[in-house]
Amino acid sequence: MNDRYLRALRREPVDCTPVWIMRQAGRYLPEYRATRARAGSFLALAKTPELACEVTLQPLARFPLDAAILFSDILTVPDAMGLGLHFAEGEGPRFARPVRSAADVARLRVPDMHEDLGYVLDAVALIRRELDGRVPLIGFSGSPWTLACYMVEGGGSADFARIKQMAYEAPDLLHRLLEVTTDAVIAYLAAQREAGAQALQVFDTWGGVLSPALYREFSLRYLARIAAELPRGEGAARTPLILFGKGNGRFVGELAATGAEAVGVDWTIDLADARRASGGRVALQGNLDPAVLAASPATIEAEVGKVLDSYGDGPGHVFNLGHGITPDIPPEHVAVLVDAVHRLSAGRASGAGGA
Amino acid sequence: MNDRYLRALRREPVDCTPVWIMRQAGRYLPEYRATRARAGSFLALAKTPELACEVTLQPLARFPLDAAILFSDILTVPDAMGLGLHFAEGEGPRFARPVRSAADVARLRVPDMHEDLGYVLDAVALIRRELDGRVPLIGFSGSPWTLACYMVEGGGSADFARIKQMAYEAPDLLHRLLEVTTDAVIAYLAAQREAGAQALQVFDTWGGVLSPALYREFSLRYLARIAAELPRGEGAARTPLILFGKGNGRFVGELAATGAEAVGVDWTIDLADARRASGGRVALQGNLDPAVLAASPATIEAEVGKVLDSYGDGPGHVFNLGHGITPDIPPEHVAVLVDAVHRLSAGRASGAGGA
Repeated sequence: MNDRYLRALRREPVDCTPVWIMRQAGRYLPEYRATRARAGSFLALAKTPELACEVTLQPLARFPLDAAILFSDILTVPDAMGLGLHFAEGEGPRFARPVRSAADVARLRVPDMHEDLGYVLDAVALIRRELDGRVPLIGFSGSPWTLACYMVEGGGSADFARIKQMAYEAPDLLHRLLEVTTDAVIAYLAAQREAGAQALQVFDTWGGVLSPALYREFSLRYLARIAAELPRGEGAARTPLILFGKGNGRFVGELAATGAEAVGVDWTIDLADARRASGGRVALQGNLDPAVLAASPATIEAEVGKVLDSYGDGPGHVFNLGHGITPDIPPEHVAVLVDAVHRLSAGRASGAGGA
Repeated sequence: MNDRYLRALRREPVDCTPVWIMRQAGRYLPEYRATRARAGSFLALAKTPELACEVTLQPLARFPLDAAILFSDILTVPDAMGLGLHFAEGEGPRFARPVRSAADVARLRVPDMHEDLGYVLDAVALIRRELDGRVPLIGFSGSPWTLACYMVEGGGSADFARIKQMAYEAPDLLHRLLEVTTDAVIAYLAAQREAGAQALQVFDTWGGVLSPALYREFSLRYLARIAAELPRGEGAARTPLILFGKGNGRFVGELAATGAEAVGVDWTIDLADARRASGGRVALQGNLDPAVLAASPATIEAEVGKVLDSYGDGPGHVFNLGHGITPDIPPEHVAVLVDAVHRLSAGRASGAGGA
């Protein structure tokens, strides 16, 4: 097996820097759009294990990526908690029953993983089987705070006015919501691990909209609970946990102190600074601005080089974008990126050390 | 005159912390909405000095704010450069002639301040006269980078794909655009000062979307040029320049080193950290999350106290939100905020020292 990705997460030497791309199974690929059209809807695609498996594997057939990531959506968990997820065309996700009152929160239960989220676990098992050891499979979940944003707002939001109002005016209620959601996230990640996921990433997409005080109280606290309580084995067999967040550069030191194995950052922080802040306690994932992928091959290669330089020598770097790839990117540009990461890092001291 | 605001910007002792609110003349005020309806359009309101003066003064009639800010729009400058600004209802600003090519950039000229932007200068002079020394008047401009975002994208943007593409693929072209825009911003701020503005704020709304390397190259560099080249007098008569930016917390030390008199930050950084990073070289403005204003009076007061605590003792703090007030806020909540800032800070060591 190509285990560069897992070795880098364990901060072991690798022959070159591993790379995967957030949303690598996505709309920039014509074959994804074809499968999505066949499925009829985004949710049907996510909820049909065979189709989820098919799109998960599509980017691996094109590019020598070092990891696969389960094709799914972070909102499967609140959907399984009874909120009624649907996608309005061109409008993003919506919940039929958002969580607004104490009664709404009191009704929330940790879903039964096999009853309510079995389709995800079936997809994990199927993908793992189909991968046949080629590269590791990443499972994932939204962070409790990010899931709570959608649960309270009822969908996407520009200003997060409702959940911030809850944070300021009913913090105990929001904590109850986050507690049960964290229980669900831990159970969900543990179930994905049992089904075959070899690394687990938490996406804290919206932690960055918070003040430092609120971030620590409502996002970081629950990320730390996940890092502490998620069962994931020991030693070399330990399943690594990666905490990714947009705008989390301010908190890399605190995220590294949670006990997670890796922290993923966006492009608004230099990896050199992130590395200093993390004190070498974690691997780091990131962090090319996705906008670079719209540029020419020469520019992509140059910018890849800058990210590798910014991380510097030594193990513990997983290359990625700082956020998901956008639908407008030509697939050939992804090939340029993946090749540049492998080629440029193989010539570096970081790549040496021998695997 | 109530000169608390100017004294705080000079880091002199004040009897209590001065406060003003970004977008204090805005849609949350019914009297603003009435004047706006009378004007017929947002642009007519901004371009008619008597009406701009009227809405500038409205919040001062309600609240004991410590400064007035010119009612205008940051896009007046590119509009005067010939881009054809209009507002599509519910869609935000649009330019009829965005700047995309080398020929587009070559056509850009610094507008004639009196010919093309006389309506702004007339508004400044009129407001200053009507204020009659009650509180200082703040003039403002968008930052070169932020103006360039609108000029290249042609309006608002979610991902700034076009201007980032220009930054990566045609950096010299973008620098030429930013040079002429910076010339225009400096001339615009100097003209506002001559017309009567007593402090000058630059709004770098979109610097936060950049990687550190791109921020330094395309935003900070031009902010530094403004700080170095904008004529603003000497000593106690010097007109203070405030550099505000969303997501600029990472760069407070570098912004403080530009020679600007103050740095304005959003709520994603603790003022204590901003103060440390600035090394005491500048005054700091901020930084309550605007979402707090939707909460109860008790919460608003508590959160105001936390911001004051975060800044700590000693002079040099101008209280503000971390971004503009939103239209949904009850005006009475602004009264609670302004009162809390004055009352809680008057009891502090920071307020003492005597003015």
